[in-house]
Amino acid sequence: MISVAEATRLVAATVRPLGTELLSLPLAAGRILHEDLRADRDFPPFNRVAMDGIALRYDTLAAGQQEFLITATQFAGQPPVTGPSPTAAVEIMTGAMLPEGLDTVIRYEDLTFRTDEAGQRHATVQALPPRAGHNVHQRASDRRQGDLLLPAGTRLEPAEMAVAATIGAATVAVARRPRLAVVGTGDELVPISEQPAAHQIRRSNALMLQAAAWQAGAEADSFHFDDDPAVLRQELPALLAGYDAVVLSGGVSMGKADFLPEILQELGVEQRFHGVAQRPGKPFWFGARTGGAVVFALPGNPVSTFVNFYRYVQPWLQAGQQPSGAAVTGSGPVPAVLTQPIEFKPLMTHFLLVSLEAGPDGRLLATPERAGGSGDMASLLTSSGFLELPPESTHFPVGTVLPVWRFR
Amino acid sequence: MISVAEATRLVAATVRPLGTELLSLPLAAGRILHEDLRADRDFPPFNRVAMDGIALRYDTLAAGQQEFLITATQFAGQPPVTGPSPTAAVEIMTGAMLPEGLDTVIRYEDLTFRTDEAGQRHATVQALPPRAGHNVHQRASDRRQGDLLLPAGTRLEPAEMAVAATIGAATVAVARRPRLAVVGTGDELVPISEQPAAHQIRRSNALMLQAAAWQAGAEADSFHFDDDPAVLRQELPALLAGYDAVVLSGGVSMGKADFLPEILQELGVEQRFHGVAQRPGKPFWFGARTGGAVVFALPGNPVSTFVNFYRYVQPWLQAGQQPSGAAVTGSGPVPAVLTQPIEFKPLMTHFLLVSLEAGPDGRLLATPERAGGSGDMASLLTSSGFLELPPESTHFPVGTVLPVWRFR
Repeated sequence: MISVAEATRLVAATVRPLGTELLSLPLAAGRILHEDLRADRDFPPFNRVAMDGIALRYDTLAAGQQEFLITATQFAGQPPVTGPSPTAAVEIMTGAMLPEGLDTVIRYEDLTFRTDEAGQRHATVQALPPRAGHNVHQRASDRRQGDLLLPAGTRLEPAEMAVAATIGAATVAVARRPRLAVVGTGDELVPISEQPAAHQIRRSNALMLQAAAWQAGAEADSFHFDDDPAVLRQELPALLAGYDAVVLSGGVSMGKADFLPEILQELGVEQRFHGVAQRPGKPFWFGARTGGAVVFALPGNPVSTFVNFYRYVQPWLQAGQQPSGAAVTGSGPVPAVLTQPIEFKPLMTHFLLVSLEAGPDGRLLATPERAGGSGDMASLLTSSGFLELPPESTHFPVGTVLPVWRFR
Repeated sequence: MISVAEATRLVAATVRPLGTELLSLPLAAGRILHEDLRADRDFPPFNRVAMDGIALRYDTLAAGQQEFLITATQFAGQPPVTGPSPTAAVEIMTGAMLPEGLDTVIRYEDLTFRTDEAGQRHATVQALPPRAGHNVHQRASDRRQGDLLLPAGTRLEPAEMAVAATIGAATVAVARRPRLAVVGTGDELVPISEQPAAHQIRRSNALMLQAAAWQAGAEADSFHFDDDPAVLRQELPALLAGYDAVVLSGGVSMGKADFLPEILQELGVEQRFHGVAQRPGKPFWFGARTGGAVVFALPGNPVSTFVNFYRYVQPWLQAGQQPSGAAVTGSGPVPAVLTQPIEFKPLMTHFLLVSLEAGPDGRLLATPERAGGSGDMASLLTSSGFLELPPESTHFPVGTVLPVWRFR
């Protein structure tokens, strides 16, 4: 039996980039970028008017002139007025390019207007603005042409989509979605739509894994196989060849019906470990097939399956979407504060379901669930993560800060 | 100009349930439940064996018998052995139903086996377990038949999917997805695939809003209209009739080209407010059409559009997916701790972009972005939320705890 740290290392060692595909930008929402995207122009690309009002020359105003003849009007999207008079003004709208020779914008709220007998409009400035450049978003003040804006490995969330659009990245190279086969096993399981006999229950783990894989950005297909070596020998090879990973639930404990590890090895899946010093999920079996799928064979208890998916499978899915060699940032556990003391005697890592709440002082508070053992699926409903209690300690007093893996 | 609190109230007042649809359970992943789902059986539905080993009667063991003849083997999914001898044992696997008359399971690790001359197997128990019921997950110990497990309004995340499957909810009533039209305006904007002239920029806000709407579980279509009253009068009616909400970006400030509020009112959209004491997003216009769409007309600056989407539109989308009258839980801002002092003089609410980090003590730390004004789209890349600084104060020292709206 190996430690959680060693299991994590052995799982990570099987990560390989899953490939790249080119997508039209709107279709790439949520994907991981596989190319560096740089600014094609300065940000902003011109001296951009930031308020509706008039554009003028600050020096003229500072020298004492308060009223300005309006010689032109310029909307956003129009080429800038050329050769404006240094003593007159251009009425101008937000988003327009500031005309060459003018440097300051006074917004409507700080102006009064009059029309003279000849029908010409004049604006009077109420107060001297604090500096030249007022209400102008200066060219290149945010980013410069050539700056790296979106490095490979970035997830294309809404802000990144906006930036990619602005620099004209109409087609982008992104990670292919991982393809996952989730497989439920167990002869006691009947389909969701059937009425189970007294000693049966309905299938739930495969659907749970499928939904979790979807949330992690993977494609996932769901299967159920009977606990029959002949069936498994016949059905598993297609999954091992056609998917990046196969996640099995059930069939790996010490029981007589648990022949899965043996069959997987027959089918060319090399065992990397079997048994991890953790609860829940001690019988976890992991292997990899050369040029084919990795196999996460998780114990069949719902809580065990669930926790081990988030602890091992999800990080593997995320890492495989990164460009070669890049580390995943921004995922993984965060620190949380224990609100109740916990005793856990066995010298193994304990994954403890907790509800999470932000305290009034900004601390993330973790309250252990009344847990009915690793079979208590309903306890997942009121939890939003699990603490990882290290194997070295047995007593965790109130206030202990521990890493929490969030699943909501 | 109204306060942020008043704007929030007026937006919330337009929320109405957007309708219900029936979906096959796998297709309902991520949706909001519109019916109460109750346990159809106890959880667990029978005394469930929690370890592979032998089932026996605790009293026999407590009375001193250590070796037990194994009279049968029972796998998960098999009907339970009937009439077992109180002094013998049944070899039994995890997930099986405990035979009537037996009450305790001893796992393989705590047993030794021998086979006698007649070929019969006997198991010797190494140590007395602490109590009857050991390694048995007792019927109804987690939930009882009829218990409300998933109340209407629950989001169907992976754990909820598992529970729904277990109770046989093969088809579920869920909220229809909100339908959003996102509309960019602005004559300075050219399509993503085009090379802009010096005074032009590419369209980015509509795609940003679309991606954000997708993340919020909405369907979203994207449009761009020129700043031309005739175009807007012609194109907007179909959107107002065909969508639950129309989100416009640009065209609502005080500029000459900003005739959008007038046109919207001509088209039957009743103005609820125009102007909110907030930065960014002061010119925000909001209206509703009887029996039709609500309209969020946001200022066109990218940061302003972005922040106001998360502050107003996303909560509206979430509320509309709740069953009638239910409040949204688990969304909205959380407390965070300011790591740098902030001065903000105007007597208005300030939405301040921040990067967020979990401190080693479990506190959520908010560090303000070096902000280049509300036009600085690139500052969104390094932010993960925005603080809401209340209008009453102007000085916020280090350590102030403030609500933060997260967008990552």
